[in-house]
Amino acid sequence: MSEPGDRTGRGGRGPGDAEAVRAANSALYDAFEAGDIDLMRAVWLDDSAAESVTCVHPGWAPVHGTGPVLRSWSMIMANTSYIQFVLTDVTVSVTGDTAVVTCGENMLTGMPATPADPSPGLAGGRAVATNVFRRTSSGWRLWVHHASPVLTTQEADR
Amino acid sequence: MSEPGDRTGRGGRGPGDAEAVRAANSALYDAFEAGDIDLMRAVWLDDSAAESVTCVHPGWAPVHGTGPVLRSWSMIMANTSYIQFVLTDVTVSVTGDTAVVTCGENMLTGMPATPADPSPGLAGGRAVATNVFRRTSSGWRLWVHHASPVLTTQEADR
Repeated sequence: MSEPGDRTGRGGRGPGDAEAVRAANSALYDAFEAGDIDLMRAVWLDDSAAESVTCVHPGWAPVHGTGPVLRSWSMIMANTSYIQFVLTDVTVSVTGDTAVVTCGENMLTGMPATPADPSPGLAGGRAVATNVFRRTSSGWRLWVHHASPVLTTQEADR
Repeated sequence: MSEPGDRTGRGGRGPGDAEAVRAANSALYDAFEAGDIDLMRAVWLDDSAAESVTCVHPGWAPVHGTGPVLRSWSMIMANTSYIQFVLTDVTVSVTGDTAVVTCGENMLTGMPATPADPSPGLAGGRAVATNVFRRTSSGWRLWVHHASPVLTTQEADR
């Protein structure tokens, strides 16, 4: 995951918070790229001891709860043979123990080979994400992830 | 705006907080239905004195800052002759001074009449939204709104 051209918003307690939040945000995409559910689990808040977590994958209805959210990631990662992210327009806003990150998710993905298509190749895609983190004793953990496709016509209007 | 079959998540300080957050969430959709930018302004955090606000309309890239966000709503409301919401699957999670609401936005909309189509009629639509509120001295104010279309195939998978 690489992250060119980002910027940091107002409202933090200092550059340390924003940097830690930015690292937590990168860890989400690193876990997805690695297809590693243990890394993914380490990113998310454990809602057995805290508030409920929410995850909206692009085009999906919301998934609630750490267990169902991690199962949704397992399913998505099992159906993704290759994915690489370049994050753009990263903004970080920290207030107390909550941080909001927005970013553009620029993806290069490969689908699993099938008998009908043994070499499916790579495809590009773009989404935008809002990621809300909570400060915990073990660092910033992901409370809410909402990603959605960006329509091409809207891209041209930016 | 009507709201059948909703449920409230864990993590609040009590039913009072969750009810107040739910009312603040309803106010967003009431303002849109009324096409009233003053009501819309009253929903949002004023980021001249606080953290930056973010708004992702369905299919859009993020809009940052209270001023640009309100201008985006003005533009959308000017291009919507009629809209009515039924919110479904409303969840509220309150932690300290931050609250996360997720809901299904079920819309009945009318487009403005044009010379080519003087009676365009009504259309239905569905999106999901994540709304993050901050507790302020003037009540719960909207910090982040992220709405995205739900794909029909995913709807069938719920």
